[in-house]
Amino acid sequence: MRSIVMEPGFTVHAEGSCLVSFGDTRVLCTASVEERVPPFLRGKGEGWVTAEYGMLPRATHTRGSREAAKGKQSGRTQEIQRLIGRSLRAIVDLKALGERQITIDCDVIQADGGTRTAAISGAWVALRIAVDKLMKDGLLAADPIRQQVAAVSCGICGGTPVLDLDYVEDSAAEADANFVLTGDGKLAEVQATAEGATFDEEELLRLLRLARIGCGEIFAAQRKATGR
Amino acid sequence: MRSIVMEPGFTVHAEGSCLVSFGDTRVLCTASVEERVPPFLRGKGEGWVTAEYGMLPRATHTRGSREAAKGKQSGRTQEIQRLIGRSLRAIVDLKALGERQITIDCDVIQADGGTRTAAISGAWVALRIAVDKLMKDGLLAADPIRQQVAAVSCGICGGTPVLDLDYVEDSAAEADANFVLTGDGKLAEVQATAEGATFDEEELLRLLRLARIGCGEIFAAQRKATGR
Amino acid sequence: MRSIVMEPGFTVHAEGSCLVSFGDTRVLCTASVEERVPPFLRGKGEGWVTAEYGMLPRATHTRGSREAAKGKQSGRTQEIQRLIGRSLRAIVDLKALGERQITIDCDVIQADGGTRTAAISGAWVALRIAVDKLMKDGLLAADPIRQQVAAVSCGICGGTPVLDLDYVEDSAAEADANFVLTGDGKLAEVQATAEGATFDEEELLRLLRLARIGCGEIFAAQRKATGR
Amino acid sequence: MRSIVMEPGFTVHAEGSCLVSFGDTRVLCTASVEERVPPFLRGKGEGWVTAEYGMLPRATHTRGSREAAKGKQSGRTQEIQRLIGRSLRAIVDLKALGERQITIDCDVIQADGGTRTAAISGAWVALRIAVDKLMKDGLLAADPIRQQVAAVSCGICGGTPVLDLDYVEDSAAEADANFVLTGDGKLAEVQATAEGATFDEEELLRLLRLARIGCGEIFAAQRKATGR
Amino acid sequence: MRSIVMEPGFTVHAEGSCLVSFGDTRVLCTASVEERVPPFLRGKGEGWVTAEYGMLPRATHTRGSREAAKGKQSGRTQEIQRLIGRSLRAIVDLKALGERQITIDCDVIQADGGTRTAAISGAWVALRIAVDKLMKDGLLAADPIRQQVAAVSCGICGGTPVLDLDYVEDSAAEADANFVLTGDGKLAEVQATAEGATFDEEELLRLLRLARIGCGEIFAAQRKATGR
Amino acid sequence: MRSIVMEPGFTVHAEGSCLVSFGDTRVLCTASVEERVPPFLRGKGEGWVTAEYGMLPRATHTRGSREAAKGKQSGRTQEIQRLIGRSLRAIVDLKALGERQITIDCDVIQADGGTRTAAISGAWVALRIAVDKLMKDGLLAADPIRQQVAAVSCGICGGTPVLDLDYVEDSAAEADANFVLTGDGKLAEVQATAEGATFDEEELLRLLRLARIGCGEIFAAQRKATGR
Repeated sequence: MRSIVMEPGFTVHAEGSCLVSFGDTRVLCTASVEERVPPFLRGKGEGWVTAEYGMLPRATHTRGSREAAKGKQSGRTQEIQRLIGRSLRAIVDLKALGERQITIDCDVIQADGGTRTAAISGAWVALRIAVDKLMKDGLLAADPIRQQVAAVSCGICGGTPVLDLDYVEDSAAEADANFVLTGDGKLAEVQATAEGATFDEEELLRLLRLARIGCGEIFAAQRKATGR
Repeated sequence: MRSIVMEPGFTVHAEGSCLVSFGDTRVLCTASVEERVPPFLRGKGEGWVTAEYGMLPRATHTRGSREAAKGKQSGRTQEIQRLIGRSLRAIVDLKALGERQITIDCDVIQADGGTRTAAISGAWVALRIAVDKLMKDGLLAADPIRQQVAAVSCGICGGTPVLDLDYVEDSAAEADANFVLTGDGKLAEVQATAEGATFDEEELLRLLRLARIGCGEIFAAQRKATGR
Repeated sequence: MRSIVMEPGFTVHAEGSCLVSFGDTRVLCTASVEERVPPFLRGKGEGWVTAEYGMLPRATHTRGSREAAKGKQSGRTQEIQRLIGRSLRAIVDLKALGERQITIDCDVIQADGGTRTAAISGAWVALRIAVDKLMKDGLLAADPIRQQVAAVSCGICGGTPVLDLDYVEDSAAEADANFVLTGDGKLAEVQATAEGATFDEEELLRLLRLARIGCGEIFAAQRKATGR
Repeated sequence: MRSIVMEPGFTVHAEGSCLVSFGDTRVLCTASVEERVPPFLRGKGEGWVTAEYGMLPRATHTRGSREAAKGKQSGRTQEIQRLIGRSLRAIVDLKALGERQITIDCDVIQADGGTRTAAISGAWVALRIAVDKLMKDGLLAADPIRQQVAAVSCGICGGTPVLDLDYVEDSAAEADANFVLTGDGKLAEVQATAEGATFDEEELLRLLRLARIGCGEIFAAQRKATGR
Repeated sequence: MRSIVMEPGFTVHAEGSCLVSFGDTRVLCTASVEERVPPFLRGKGEGWVTAEYGMLPRATHTRGSREAAKGKQSGRTQEIQRLIGRSLRAIVDLKALGERQITIDCDVIQADGGTRTAAISGAWVALRIAVDKLMKDGLLAADPIRQQVAAVSCGICGGTPVLDLDYVEDSAAEADANFVLTGDGKLAEVQATAEGATFDEEELLRLLRLARIGCGEIFAAQRKATGR
Repeated sequence: MRSIVMEPGFTVHAEGSCLVSFGDTRVLCTASVEERVPPFLRGKGEGWVTAEYGMLPRATHTRGSREAAKGKQSGRTQEIQRLIGRSLRAIVDLKALGERQITIDCDVIQADGGTRTAAISGAWVALRIAVDKLMKDGLLAADPIRQQVAAVSCGICGGTPVLDLDYVEDSAAEADANFVLTGDGKLAEVQATAEGATFDEEELLRLLRLARIGCGEIFAAQRKATGR
């Protein structure tokens, strides 16, 4: 597991923010609270949590083109931001949130593998801070966050299960998996993919066991960053 | 498991085609062979297999807007077509395919849950037929398809694991998972998601066991449709 | 005239549907009823009938790119869907329809010339079935469909007028024309175009005479498919 | 027939240009010669003639939105520019043009009905001037323009056939038709559409007879403008 | 200074219009009055003045591509239309205008340098005519136009300050500047840019002095065109 | 003048990088070197320097929408990135750079006024570091950077000239100006705009004098950050 650093309050305007680092991977997560919900939820007394993901053009080894300039978000970007949103909603009581929306922006400042899992892990911190602020301001009767949520990537490299892949390991992995776990040890999402070789049930379980170890560390870092 | 029907050769122009039905879900899969590869593969002596996915506007209970008219593919569409492509590449030897591309178009004629897993299952048939044609035409020295590949969705509904969810079941599921399995019993992809409730390792394994049963039936239908 | 097959009720969700074949040309037409009208008609007590057209990427001899992936509909697509919409509105009493919209989706499953005329001919069947359903449900006081409408393409190939061109004939035609006729023998639309040679009034009239013969057959097939 | 004015050489940069007025309808047509052809024609020894159409936002009674700002051309715009291109290609020998492309831009400065037919009529003048320049410069061995081409709109208003509809007449017409005729009296394109009522063969022919009269006047104006 | 011609009332539909020529540069400016304001101003009792800019594809020496066809406006176009809008708002009392919007469309018919400054100068005339009409119609209690506004480009060519650059001078300039001046001699906007060489304060002031001379001529032409 | 902080080498992948802060405004600037030039420069033995600008959605007081999600860059974004690119090219000898392109990405992490001037000032540091690396690697015979370049915003607030406006001051300014100065005291760009009131020559000069003071501080910070 690479060294994890979480800097809460990295920016001044957002209701919650956190710069999260997993080794050289650095993602800025901000939580923005808006007192309105998307059309499909209006008048239902429920809130919404959603996420957007982006990568600065030179976050990577070689410069990628800017999605805003190309005029569309890649399939990869959309897949990741949908995953982040689902992971957060898995641990939020949307009724308890009331008719408001919290948007988590996860922008990759520097990439070295595992940006989506770092984003989920840091997003929870930004969300926690924003919800704490809502509670302190007397806008919420009960805490809508039911659990912590964290994510880590694992993979099989040269036949060996590896935790928290960096870019070089990720490129070489025969299979990789992202696990999203909640504070009570349950699963919110599993995404396992054969890259160069298919895998079996036993290997999947070994990766899951590694992920439990990694998420344990992340949960601790989240608690430290939020004073929980 | 709903009744599976596979109609190979449903269209006349494509090098391979199959109309696959899982109950009321019907997906038309066509394989198009082109004697060129994407720029990143040129001159490397390797081929490529990719997929595109679409849904007719009135494939669903209420009409959805046409992606071509909106001017962009949804995140869901992109996520699905990337999954189909990865699943097929997991069982194809791209070097053995030579410098050519096979594009599998999966278009949903009618939707009742499980369109992405039906698409993967039918895509293999279309691909198999197209590759058989290439072999018969003497364009391939060896068969580049190493395995069958099939997919099925499973979910937990009211605490009970259910195989091959239809739309009503899918809407009610607390968790759902898509498994992509290969003919030799290995895993090509696992995507499990908490919808209303998180899940644990034991539940994931029970869903996987169901998926093995379902994919067994699909493998048989694929062999029958392709005469293998 | 190629063999005409009309399969009403090809899909289960749409209020009306028809898979129409003119030889190897196959178009799926669905009618979707919505209890709202476009902004320019709101509060005017009138309904609207509109159409959208698409072609599956491998409906054709060689694969075409997917319009949803390119991010825009071609000029050809837009021209065709505007023609289908106008042709249907020519035989519908929009006041009698009430403030609701019927959208006809015409998706080409397989193309061998004459897709737009097949689409118009099949669209009428889907529309007829959807309107019959509205009448049966007591939502319409009077039948808003005043006539049948059908279309066929004709052309001059090697100096000879030809009815219902397939792809090969269409490519070779010096001039081609699409005629949209109504059940009472009137014209709803004429589109005649010089391809390799200009034409004269006499040739136009000979093509129109052929079109009358072809539409007679289509009208019969429509009546059979709808039990009228 | 409204008064026709053709001002050749309205702009200084284009190889050919003409500001054409049909009453209050004013269209600026420019011909741009480029010594290259579209990809599908490269190396075939043939040229290409194409057209683009646009309308200034306040060419109309009330301001329309700017297509460049909306980010796409309407179906109407695309339909019109395709028609203009076909009409010109109907009278040009593309082999005699050699491997070069002439693009005709037709921009509506002021609209009062019949902009597409005015555009075709003025486009011929711009094309003629540009081709004369190519011939004078010794770049063409033979004249690639075989005929004049002109267009006019006609319609049935209150049961009466009317020639060259202005905006008010066009809005009231039960049916309208655009005829594209060549200098030798042949037809290049017929587009007749039922607006409020279907029409019969006899009416179509009466409109065509009117169109012949109108195009006669336009041909004379074209000859005067080009000194032919 | 090139010869300035202003033709008020060049088009019939717009509430105000002017075709302005600075030598071979010709820009059509139209003012469209709408009795509504953009969302951010609704209910505030204030009006809005905005501008859009476009260039016909063959306004220039060689044909440029059509922005509507490319599907987006260039950075240059957006920069210019924002400048025109700001320049007009600098001399309009938006409260006195009331809750209505005036859109000035500036379309370049022919370009030979200085299109943005010609556009601003002609836009004032179109705006003045439209506002005079509103006043004549009794829709405005007081004149919301506080001043004239005009603009001219200047540059340093071969070390010499030059007024009103044409295309050839503009291409050769080491530095160029656009000045927007008001009728009372104040500055609304200064945009000075090093092209081939940086410049100093003294040079900037010399260009400004030239601009005052040029704008004096333009103010006179504006007064003549509007009868003020 | 707010406190200026420049952190060179903020990211690891880019050839040059700098996180620049002007008070609460923080912009990450990275320089990416590519051994190719845009098409219009190919084979001319010259290089190119260009810039792109973006703002994270929650860089501002309230969340703005993500340009990549909207599918286009705003006019403001394009205007700013064009300005940054011009400012850098004003002090670079493109011939001495050789046939390579340096792209400067300026991404606003946090905004409190003056983001474009901070971006230009930080961009120079990123560029300087990247060029130093090229020189150290022996890829450049001579230093292509001729001067430092820096920028600062000034404005007139309540009649008083103010240097380096923050967001609150900027919103209240009657006029504001951005000056881009080079290390030898020359001007690369002046952009002065009336916001609530027009201004005169004397005021422009007073703002320029302030800008000289501010840029002096920035030049010192740049030298310190780059060790020059």
